[in-house]
Formats: sequence, structure tokens, C-alpha cells
Amino acid sequence: MTPPPNRRYRRAMATVYGMRPSGNCWKVTQILRLTGQPFRWVEVDTNGGETRTPGFLRRNPFGKVPVLELDDGTVLVESNAILAHVAEGTPWLPPPGLPRTRVMEWLFFEQYSHEPYIAVARNIRTYLGTAAANAERLANCDAAGAKALDAMEHRLASHDWLTDAGPTIADLALFAYTHVADEGGFDLARWPGVAAWVARVAALPGIVTLPRRAAA
Amino acid sequence: MTPPPNRRYRRAMATVYGMRPSGNCWKVTQILRLTGQPFRWVEVDTNGGETRTPGFLRRNPFGKVPVLELDDGTVLVESNAILAHVAEGTPWLPPPGLPRTRVMEWLFFEQYSHEPYIAVARNIRTYLGTAAANAERLANCDAAGAKALDAMEHRLASHDWLTDAGPTIADLALFAYTHVADEGGFDLARWPGVAAWVARVAALPGIVTLPRRAAA
Ligand SMILES: N[C@@H](CCC(=O)N[C@@H](CS)C(=O)NCC(=O)O)C(=O)O
Ligand SMILES: N[C@@H](CCC(=O)N[C@@H](CS)C(=O)NCC(=O)O)C(=O)O
Repeated sequence: MTPPPNRRYRRAMATVYGMRPSGNCWKVTQILRLTGQPFRWVEVDTNGGETRTPGFLRRNPFGKVPVLELDDGTVLVESNAILAHVAEGTPWLPPPGLPRTRVMEWLFFEQYSHEPYIAVARNIRTYLGTAAANAERLANCDAAGAKALDAMEHRLASHDWLTDAGPTIADLALFAYTHVADEGGFDLARWPGVAAWVARVAALPGIVTLPRRAAA
Repeated sequence: MTPPPNRRYRRAMATVYGMRPSGNCWKVTQILRLTGQPFRWVEVDTNGGETRTPGFLRRNPFGKVPVLELDDGTVLVESNAILAHVAEGTPWLPPPGLPRTRVMEWLFFEQYSHEPYIAVARNIRTYLGTAAANAERLANCDAAGAKALDAMEHRLASHDWLTDAGPTIADLALFAYTHVADEGGFDLARWPGVAAWVARVAALPGIVTLPRRAAA
């Protein structure tokens, strides 16, 4: 039996479970857009505990957004693993070998040395508005976040993209929280190579930046 | 001119810059051993500031160990990127597609949700011996580390390996700090699936576990 066209249309779409202001969730919608794949968005209220419900944990035992549900029902987690999965076979991810490894180095750097400080500072300063109560934690974010931006500057002072393969998912992953780093208190004027690269990524066709919010 | 045989022999070897008790550095030597590649080890005194010298930062602008220098001089960083690079084309890393993505999910989980708590608790409790001065930080490590072990248990209660591809670099990456998690105060008796998996990985041919140290 042929399914009615609207049902067929709906099944052909992936679903992204996410949180609007999240850079990790942004990565997923951005790579789907860049590779021309339509998707549905389901907003998850992480602060309201929606990542802790049994139903959500069944979908993602790691208890986090983003989650990407492909049209065949396959569920993918971890923003950078999703970037690599969707980008496979496109110019956004070079084939296996040294060019891909260079991308992977930046993806792990992002999750270990960049996001935990730059995204957290932004959350505290701009979304939670609890800077006073988190002075010590913020001082740590400021110092470690600056070190992460130094490492990016080391590369971007003399190169257009993070790797020699041109724009890749490494640039997307690092752009996610760097282009809103000012919301975490980081003034990119201190890192001119990074600032120029942010403008360069933002000017790529199809890039949709994160919404901005006034400090809480 | 033919180089003398001993010079040729030396050039044919990779060099690992690392710190003996580090699980991240362990990953690198372990995958080199499993794939039959000889290496030289250079001990780096991270506590003594050796990752902050200009010479070290030239090699790795991220300022961390492990660093893998291949015999052709190529320098690789980020333990999980190194795992993937060395494992490429071997059964330790499935080819691109869903099986590889499942491995990647665990690699990013390890760096974001596991290592920052389980390795840090071990460092504070067993290596630095500064538990009393770090009570709040340790409480956070204990809670988040337990959550990471819960996520592993969810899988390992009913499966032998973290992914359906058999033993992969996902198992190596998570084994690194899980097999010494007791040194961080985590009693794996609470996570029997994880404990059985630790024994299973340790029993694979060629696995060399980390040295153990009495609590400071
Ligand atoms: N390593 C994960 C991190 C994702 C993450 O931290 N997500 C946050 C929102 S940006 C979240 O779901 N927090 C809610 C929770 O941890 O319960 C990824 O890159 O996907
Ligand atoms: N994401 C990195 C983390 C490496 C890391 O944190 N290394 C520690 C030793 S285990 C280090 O070099 N610390 C010294 C420093 O940060 O200066 C990786 O997986 O390679």
C-alpha cells in the first residue's frame, strides 16, 4: 500500500531534540542545513529536567541534548559525533588519514578545553545571571577559556581555517560557542585571528548564527 | 648516502611524550602496542611545568600530553584523535558509517562526561592527596562520575563491548580511567556490568594495565 504523500513526507525527515540557545545543538541543525537535509525541531527544557525523564533517557542514556533521530529511527548522540556522521562523504569532513585526524584533534579540543569554559561562562553570565554567586567558577572559566582562545589564535593568526582542508566540521564545532563568546565575557578583540575567522565562518553560504540575548 | 643501520632503526620509531600514570597517555602506548608499532617514551613532568615551556608549546600549542610524534616527524595531539589515527584500517576502528559513529559517541562522552570527573577524582585522592582541601570539587566529581558509570552500565549490563563492532578504541578510551576508577574512590561493585567489562578488556591479548599507587 502506498502511504499517503504527507505521511511519506513526514517520515523522510530527521528530528533534532535540542535547546535553542545551545551551541552544541546549533552544530546539528547547521550541518543538516549545509548538507541539505530537512529536519523537525523538538525543544527540550533541560533546566526543567526534561533530559532526566525515563522517556528521554531511553532515547539518550547520556541524558543530554542534542539528540538526532534519523528518518529510519536511528538515534545519534554527542554533537561532534553527529557532525562527523552527517558530514561523512562531504567536503565538510576529509577522508580518513591525516587530514581527518587534524579535524578530530580540534573536535576533542573543543569538548575538553573550550566548551566547558566558554559555554559555561556564557550560561552563567548571560542565561542564569548568577555571576556573583559563581565568582570562583567564573574565574576558572575566564582563565581556561582564554587559554583555549590562545590555542585557536596560534593557528588562526596565520591561517584561514582550523585545518588545511578548508572549512570543515572543525570550524563549525569551534564556531558554535566562539561566535557568542562575548556573551561569556570574552572580548575577541584580544584574539584578532580568531575574530577574523569568526567573520569568515559566518560569511560562508548557509551559516545561521545563534540568537543573541541581552545579559540577564 | 645510506644512513648507518642504528640511525635508520631509530628513525623508524614513533615517540610518545607523556606522563606515566596518565590514562590519556596510556591510550597512545596501548594502541601502538596493539597494532605492533614500536615507540620511544619521553616522560614529561606536567606538574613541574614542562607542558608550558616554549619548546613544548611549539610541539603542541594545546599544552598537554599525550603527544605522538610519528617517525616522519608528524605531530599528533588529543588522545582520542591519536587512537583513531593509529587504529585506522584495523579492527579497532570500524569503517565510516554507523558503526564508526557509535565509537565516536563514546569517545566524545569519555572526554566530556567521564574523564573530567573520574580522572580528576583519582588525581586528587591518590596522586595529589589533597582531598580535604577539595571537598566541594570532589563531591561534584563523585556525583558526575557516578552518572558516567551509570551510562556505561546501561550498555554493559547486557553487552560485552561498548559498541556492536566488538572491542574497539571506544573500549580502550573508556578503559583508560575506568580500570583505575577505584583510585578515585569509585567502587565498581556498584556497577557490575562495568566491572565485568573491565575484566574482559584487561583479558584481551596485549593489554597492559596502568601501574597502581597506594593512596597518598
Ligand atoms: N558532549 C555533549 C554535551 C551536551 C550538553 O552538555 N548538553 C547540555 C545542553 S548544551 C544538556 O543537555 N544539559 C542538560 C543535562 O546535562 O541534563 C555534546 O556535545 O552533545
Ligand atoms: N584532551 C586531552 C587531555 C590531555 C590532558 O589533560 N593531559 C594532562 C595529563 S593527563 C596534561 O597534560 N596536563 C598538563 C597541563 O594541562 O598543563 C587528551 O585527551 O589528550
